[in-house]
Amino acid sequence: MPIYTCTTAQGTLRADAKGALATEITRIHSEINHVPPAYVNVVFSELPQDSVYVGGEPGAPLLIGGWARRGHPQEETTRLALELSAAASRVTGIPERRILVVIQDSPARSAVEGGQVLPDPGQEKEWLSRQEA
Amino acid sequence: MPIYTCTTAQGTLRADAKGALATEITRIHSEINHVPPAYVNVVFSELPQDSVYVGGEPGAPLLIGGWARRGHPQEETTRLALELSAAASRVTGIPERRILVVIQDSPARSAVEGGQVLPDPGQEKEWLSRQEA
Amino acid sequence: MPIYTCTTAQGTLRADAKGALATEITRIHSEINHVPPAYVNVVFSELPQDSVYVGGEPGAPLLIGGWARRGHPQEETTRLALELSAAASRVTGIPERRILVVIQDSPARSAVEGGQVLPDPGQEKEWLSRQEA
Repeated sequence: MPIYTCTTAQGTLRADAKGALATEITRIHSEINHVPPAYVNVVFSELPQDSVYVGGEPGAPLLIGGWARRGHPQEETTRLALELSAAASRVTGIPERRILVVIQDSPARSAVEGGQVLPDPGQEKEWLSRQEA
Repeated sequence: MPIYTCTTAQGTLRADAKGALATEITRIHSEINHVPPAYVNVVFSELPQDSVYVGGEPGAPLLIGGWARRGHPQEETTRLALELSAAASRVTGIPERRILVVIQDSPARSAVEGGQVLPDPGQEKEWLSRQEA
Repeated sequence: MPIYTCTTAQGTLRADAKGALATEITRIHSEINHVPPAYVNVVFSELPQDSVYVGGEPGAPLLIGGWARRGHPQEETTRLALELSAAASRVTGIPERRILVVIQDSPARSAVEGGQVLPDPGQEKEWLSRQEA
């Protein structure tokens, strides 16, 4: 259901960091937003070093943008962003001051997976049973 | 007006699939959201295979993220997502269980094209006549 | 705080245009949204020419997508989009008819930077003093 995009300049992430970060994002999102791990998508966009700017100068941030279904409690989404930032720093060795996590949302009814309209938060169980049928 | 980004791991899409998928997305969006085809943007981000994860493991989904102006009826946006998923599967041969379509929006007044603020849904006609002037 | 992603087909931007455009986006966003330049992120995604379509045909647009904290006055966000479009054309030489600027938002409480939840618009001062502590 969710999509996370991690954007960096090439060389910012160690070779083994992508898999480890994907694992952590998947675990944290799954726990907080009540989605089975198998439904969490994480992609990495590693751009040339002359394509990433902070403050108008070439930079090396880790930008984590996520999309989730609208309707999760705000305090849970805040906790999600905080935990993702801390985990990303721990896994990658990048200090949190260079990490920005942003969660966006839109209505579940504006998204389709497996040919079916996504369920609103709290309605996952019935939807998942239909997917596996 | 809209922007669609199709994200995959390299090798997921056949060589001829990008043009065909762009054509279908353009046709469907144009019909449902009342925008001339010439205003529909579709881009493809094909990432290395070690940069795409599903459930914490390397995966091969087709992730279609779209942005449209806020204010279209929700039932139309749901239909848009459903039709995009079905068409994407038909054109690419990827089963729908590996396809996720997400539509996001923001106010038309938060977007500018051709130097002019975008029109709210339903106000396209006058705006388009000014663009062509 | 904000993230801007500029998407083009390879060859659309001159070699020196990325730095100049990042500088202008940073300056304009900083002025209008009251964020220090050092907190403005700008990245460029330059895709193969067969990966960018306008109206279902290969095209060469400049697509500028921005994320900012929710709660800025709408008229300011409209002015932001208008000024970004004009500046992008001036700096890159691309006519505005090929430029689309879209600003999206989500609650500041859905985003974390430097390990801290972002401040709502208007609350930047205290937050920034904590970051620098």
